Amino acid sequence: MAKPFDDLIDYCQSMATVSSIQSVLSWDQETYMPSDAIQFRSKQCSWLAKTAHDYWLSDRFKHILGACIDLSTQEILLDSLTFEQSRLVQELYKDWRKKTQLPTDFVGQYSALVAESTHVWQQAKEQNDYNLFEPYLAKLIDLSRQKASFIDSDRLTYDVLLDEFEPGMTVKRVEQLFADLKERGLPLLKRVQDLTLCYKPIQGPFNTQHQWLYTLDLLKNMGFDFKQGRQDRSSHPFTIDIHPSDVRVTTRLDKHLFFSGITSTVHEGGHGLYEQGLQKEFFGTPLAQAVSLGIHESQSRLWENHICKSLPFWQGQLAKIQSYFPTQFTDVSAYDLWKQVNKVEPGFIRVEADEISYLCHIMIRFECECKLFDGSLSTKDLPDFWNESYQTYLGISPSSDSEGVLQDIHWSSALFGYFPTYVIGSICAAQLYDHLESSLPHIDTLIESGNWLPIKDWLSTHIYKKGRLYESNDLIKSITGQDISSQFLLDYLDQKVDALYEDSVV
Amino acid sequence: MAKPFDDLIDYCQSMATVSSIQSVLSWDQETYMPSDAIQFRSKQCSWLAKTAHDYWLSDRFKHILGACIDLSTQEILLDSLTFEQSRLVQELYKDWRKKTQLPTDFVGQYSALVAESTHVWQQAKEQNDYNLFEPYLAKLIDLSRQKASFIDSDRLTYDVLLDEFEPGMTVKRVEQLFADLKERGLPLLKRVQDLTLCYKPIQGPFNTQHQWLYTLDLLKNMGFDFKQGRQDRSSHPFTIDIHPSDVRVTTRLDKHLFFSGITSTVHEGGHGLYEQGLQKEFFGTPLAQAVSLGIHESQSRLWENHICKSLPFWQGQLAKIQSYFPTQFTDVSAYDLWKQVNKVEPGFIRVEADEISYLCHIMIRFECECKLFDGSLSTKDLPDFWNESYQTYLGISPSSDSEGVLQDIHWSSALFGYFPTYVIGSICAAQLYDHLESSLPHIDTLIESGNWLPIKDWLSTHIYKKGRLYESNDLIKSITGQDISSQFLLDYLDQKVDALYEDSVV
Repeated sequence: MAKPFDDLIDYCQSMATVSSIQSVLSWDQETYMPSDAIQFRSKQCSWLAKTAHDYWLSDRFKHILGACIDLSTQEILLDSLTFEQSRLVQELYKDWRKKTQLPTDFVGQYSALVAESTHVWQQAKEQNDYNLFEPYLAKLIDLSRQKASFIDSDRLTYDVLLDEFEPGMTVKRVEQLFADLKERGLPLLKRVQDLTLCYKPIQGPFNTQHQWLYTLDLLKNMGFDFKQGRQDRSSHPFTIDIHPSDVRVTTRLDKHLFFSGITSTVHEGGHGLYEQGLQKEFFGTPLAQAVSLGIHESQSRLWENHICKSLPFWQGQLAKIQSYFPTQFTDVSAYDLWKQVNKVEPGFIRVEADEISYLCHIMIRFECECKLFDGSLSTKDLPDFWNESYQTYLGISPSSDSEGVLQDIHWSSALFGYFPTYVIGSICAAQLYDHLESSLPHIDTLIESGNWLPIKDWLSTHIYKKGRLYESNDLIKSITGQDISSQFLLDYLDQKVDALYEDSVV
Repeated sequence: MAKPFDDLIDYCQSMATVSSIQSVLSWDQETYMPSDAIQFRSKQCSWLAKTAHDYWLSDRFKHILGACIDLSTQEILLDSLTFEQSRLVQELYKDWRKKTQLPTDFVGQYSALVAESTHVWQQAKEQNDYNLFEPYLAKLIDLSRQKASFIDSDRLTYDVLLDEFEPGMTVKRVEQLFADLKERGLPLLKRVQDLTLCYKPIQGPFNTQHQWLYTLDLLKNMGFDFKQGRQDRSSHPFTIDIHPSDVRVTTRLDKHLFFSGITSTVHEGGHGLYEQGLQKEFFGTPLAQAVSLGIHESQSRLWENHICKSLPFWQGQLAKIQSYFPTQFTDVSAYDLWKQVNKVEPGFIRVEADEISYLCHIMIRFECECKLFDGSLSTKDLPDFWNESYQTYLGISPSSDSEGVLQDIHWSSALFGYFPTYVIGSICAAQLYDHLESSLPHIDTLIESGNWLPIKDWLSTHIYKKGRLYESNDLIKSITGQDISSQFLLDYLDQKVDALYEDSVV
């Protein structure tokens, strides 16, 4: 291999080593770190962040990268590269450009504002006072506009912001996808709201140590490798990738909630399998990185929604569940469990929403963001718009800003363009699962059997091993033969509702 | 404060941040890291080690340090420094000199040999074959000689090596201390071996979850701050200092061993209190670092031997122990527990040894090291010398090299001069405890009461808060009025043996 390319790989691996160390510290902070260590931990993290940033901005990296790709014309300068290697160089160039377009002063100003805003948002949420947060939100939007124009002043601001999380995605494409969702999804939600789900409810408490053991069992059966990863408990479930040989997921267990630990383990397990499945030999390069937030989320949601929330799953698991919880599941059927885990009930809180309501939560946020950035909505008017949208979409109105516009942390961290990736995840999961059904014909039997390794292997071949070889739409098209489309998700939800409410009382 | 001094502090804090990150990764590796992550973990650690090394060797640090102290004459260049600040600069200079005297090539060669030797030692121990390890030991000794001569070619090699772990200590001083131990300690051991300890033995198993809760309770009562630290389980108990606000100890629990978890928790707790008690405002500088390995060990042994292995401790704890283990302690007295935890029984293995035999294990290793370095013993003849020494000191001969000369990892890591610090720890612990008894008059009542905070506070004032203001002998002298002396340890052991065997059968 050409020396410049090897140098590039070496350099990337050093950079990735720094970020992997950041990941160990983040994991530690969320799981086991003593509470009073937080102040010093932020010093350790600042030092690592600065070191990582210096790696990106160094003249040495510019020189190494510039030997592989022309930094003005983006022309690949090495003849001998394979398609994969060229893609690696192109994606690295894009990453480098995003990092280096921002003046250092601006980065400092931006980080300081985010830190302060997150703090103020917490207070505002606690005190249920949007007015506290509003001026910060206005500044965050202003600085995000500046950020977008530093990165690419020729493109629509919101497109540049979206590109941070979902490379290649545009506001126009999201609007199309969401328009389809709205057209068929809202009537579906309306239909469900008029029906009553019939099932025998289960009764807690559910011993958390038994829940813990059962969630470990689930992860094992998904093919999560405990020699290259682990599960812990945390207040907000998450997945941290240190290296494909060290991937850590967390779950949240509550003795009164039976399904929450299971679905959160399976969800994070889906993320975890993706990270464990990346190619170790390309560690540190785009070829061993996830495509986008949307594709990452498609992996967690495929496992959570299409597998864990399917009837065959509960049919296959009931006996095992009865063995972990000998007294509480003697009188219930797999149907009862399946119906309960799929219960549709519009509420104010996104993270507690069912699959259908969830779409509305995201569409509302997307509309807010688009309007805030195209200037047609001011931050002052945001709560009214938010509340009216909830009425329109879900037929409910939040009684306070804390359970309304202030509920999520994202905006206080300037994560604009992030929310749509959640639904892109649901859309891609449904499209992939539809294709998976034809690729693995007896998938229901497979799910019921508890032998889920063929599913993991399929995902590994088609997604994990690809890294960032393709952007999300190209990846989905290369697998399913079609552009990303909302129709698969809508078909899936239609069928699920039909099945769930087959015996329902009108 | 003068700018050069402030710059020095800032620089030290950045350096210390890097090593604190190394500590987080080490802790993680020994506690929760998935097994297959080890290969990548070593890359993360190498990167951190190189970064830390670069900090020490940088021209910038030389410049900053050189503005505070003349790097040739060691004369302090700033007028305005207090005694503490001058000591800080002097100690930093010494550290810097040790690090920078070694040529980079040599450091690489040395690290590579240590890595290889540790691996070979493991194999040799498993296969009970000293001949496998012998050539590596010879090379390690040779390279350690070179190391010592790089650091200070005018001094005795073994003095330079000792200085790494116990600054200011010399082979001559250790010989004096050990000669006293030998003179009174060996007859004492002989006397004990002729006696039989009478007690009612306890019967396991002891639920490890209850052991765990009890050890947490002990740490809490010692004054270990769980907001600034934590305890976990590991196969070899250790203490890791990340920052005074983040100190982590581990313990080893075995359902068949009742005392092992308790003594290891109290031992590591002693180390942990020292680290939590260092002054946060001087973090990263010698004023917030432990004096030496010997003084560190004095803290763990003071708690383990003088407090946890005392009769008042068991008198005070019995009721609590009975509440944690309701069935197994109904028929035993505090005397029974106290006798069992103090049982003297010569064996081959250092880490399992009682307080008296322990001294012999170390004296033997010290004699071996002195002879290996003064050239009067060859590595080939080492096992014979080792086995003869065990016969002389303890009246037993190891039946294999694995339980003899190969038992400890230290030599494979080139830790020559390290072993004596364990006994210096015991010596200093006894001397400090003797002084503590007069400073806190009713100490037996205090120990029995379970309110150990006055002990921690006393140690905090006299030791923790001092950092490296004094070298070990000066520190002990400043507290007790005398140079370090073995007589306190010998007096303590004499009295303990008298009490333990008061009712013994000859």
